[in-house]
Amino acid sequence: MGNRRFILVRRPQGVPKESDFRIDETAIPEPGEGEIVLRNHYASIDPAMRGWMDDEPSYLPPVPLGAPMRATTIGRVHRSRHPDFREGQWVLSMTAIEDYACLAPNPFTQVIDETVTGNVTDYLYLIGAVGLTAYFATVEVGKPKAGETVLVTGAAGAVGSLVGQIAKLHGCRTIGIAGGPEKCARLVRDYGYDAAIDYRGKDVSALAAEIREAAPGGVNFIFENVGGPILDAGLLNIAPHGRVVLCGLISEYNHAGERYGTRQLWQLIVHAATIQGFILTDFIPRFAEGAKVMAAWAREGKLRHDEHIVEGIDNAYDALMRLFDGRHDGKLILKLA
Amino acid sequence: MGNRRFILVRRPQGVPKESDFRIDETAIPEPGEGEIVLRNHYASIDPAMRGWMDDEPSYLPPVPLGAPMRATTIGRVHRSRHPDFREGQWVLSMTAIEDYACLAPNPFTQVIDETVTGNVTDYLYLIGAVGLTAYFATVEVGKPKAGETVLVTGAAGAVGSLVGQIAKLHGCRTIGIAGGPEKCARLVRDYGYDAAIDYRGKDVSALAAEIREAAPGGVNFIFENVGGPILDAGLLNIAPHGRVVLCGLISEYNHAGERYGTRQLWQLIVHAATIQGFILTDFIPRFAEGAKVMAAWAREGKLRHDEHIVEGIDNAYDALMRLFDGRHDGKLILKLA
Repeated sequence: MGNRRFILVRRPQGVPKESDFRIDETAIPEPGEGEIVLRNHYASIDPAMRGWMDDEPSYLPPVPLGAPMRATTIGRVHRSRHPDFREGQWVLSMTAIEDYACLAPNPFTQVIDETVTGNVTDYLYLIGAVGLTAYFATVEVGKPKAGETVLVTGAAGAVGSLVGQIAKLHGCRTIGIAGGPEKCARLVRDYGYDAAIDYRGKDVSALAAEIREAAPGGVNFIFENVGGPILDAGLLNIAPHGRVVLCGLISEYNHAGERYGTRQLWQLIVHAATIQGFILTDFIPRFAEGAKVMAAWAREGKLRHDEHIVEGIDNAYDALMRLFDGRHDGKLILKLA
Repeated sequence: MGNRRFILVRRPQGVPKESDFRIDETAIPEPGEGEIVLRNHYASIDPAMRGWMDDEPSYLPPVPLGAPMRATTIGRVHRSRHPDFREGQWVLSMTAIEDYACLAPNPFTQVIDETVTGNVTDYLYLIGAVGLTAYFATVEVGKPKAGETVLVTGAAGAVGSLVGQIAKLHGCRTIGIAGGPEKCARLVRDYGYDAAIDYRGKDVSALAAEIREAAPGGVNFIFENVGGPILDAGLLNIAPHGRVVLCGLISEYNHAGERYGTRQLWQLIVHAATIQGFILTDFIPRFAEGAKVMAAWAREGKLRHDEHIVEGIDNAYDALMRLFDGRHDGKLILKLA
């Protein structure tokens, strides 16, 4: 058995098509001096992957055509020619959707401490990039204060569901926006939201009116992961000195042609409000601190964190599509081994 | 001679038409107990006036139809039935474009100290709302640091020209955007900008390319007073951790139908940048402090502040139009007496 890889063969226009990818098989790579080869067990399926498929300037270079699709993965060291890594160790790294990844370890390549939570996939979620995004975006940027009203978009998603719970732990009233009645039911039942709003089939003013009903005094902190009309509806309800933490714009990622234009920035002036873009890498020096707090909350049963595992590299495209069309209940993870 | 007033008779659709207003004449009002009547000498013509004409929620209620158009004015006390005001005193207040204004003094009604600069109209500009907006938006929100690059939109305008000069006083490199070659020449000659960009006839990508040429390392602080495509072009050049101080969106005020949609908010995420809305009233407790600094800079010849005076209430509509079409060289003031 060789190395099966999920290859990007074409830059998607709008929603990625199955023909934009193919699965190939090559020989299992051999590590050069200073390199390691990982047997990947899990790949994190994240919204950022859509941006990496485009040939546009961003915080990481585009995935080259013909290369396996970049992903955060967890694997065991298969072969090591690097003094800091031993065969059999669990390693978190940014590699790609492929069975075996050869890499020269960098600052993002991290040996997993299985004792933190006892569950290696927590490094793809609860105490990985997703969980730490929720933690730092909420606690350090949004800075929710007890009694405030917090609006979370993508509220049932991997990041959003944690943001809602963290805001709740800070004594806030939480309103979640999600797509469809089932997800909205989960918001209240599983993640403790005080109110749930279904965005489907609603334009900006209908959505703004529903938010207003749920938050008559305005929203102090918006965690924004969706963008498009949902952001405009949120801005129409921002409270004086409100903060929008802009973490993602997933509704706009599959744009072919012109992006959605946000029309309600005027509300920022009227309410002396702020939109702040969030990049997790700003907080790298504090990852251990954040992971410790998140793991403690989880141990105390205060943070529900569901995983949605898709099995097998053959289903990599399906896993990606579930990300964009909402067919997932929890953090999407592709199981490779 | 009675009280001539510039009346709003119809809510403008898009660009205000002359027929949206009329001038009438009523009796000079008599003050009730606790009220004063001012003989208005000067009215400040400001972008915010366009918003007050609309029947939309904002930080001040809409001007009622049939009422004189709201404006910040300077006048002398004509009659007083209020213990803190004496006839003949110069008073700054928010009244309206009318010869005589009757009002109950409020916290915005301020007896002018003629000794601060020796020029009463400075209270409509250098040390009034305009100058203090430039001061606090720059010094307290934008926080320019020596060596940074600052982009000012509406750079030849009343606020923008001061912002550019204040940023320069902080050791920044300044780039101004304005409309037409004459204004661009003034940016460099009169206000000390290091580079001037003419936005006319350019789309977002052409404008973004010109900004990139003037600021190859990106822009650390954008003072945004214009919005529309100019804001998008600025966002495409924001530096890591850049700050946009959103003070106005004058290009969008005369919208009939749908507002312009800002398409480049994605850049906020990629660069962990911030857009912060600015309202001057947040700084009311510090007005005296700001005025002192601005007056000192002006005395030392460090702040050029041109006034563009339009004579007579008959030209009130013309003064408003000059605001929107750019036919003014400095702060627009309507002289009423």
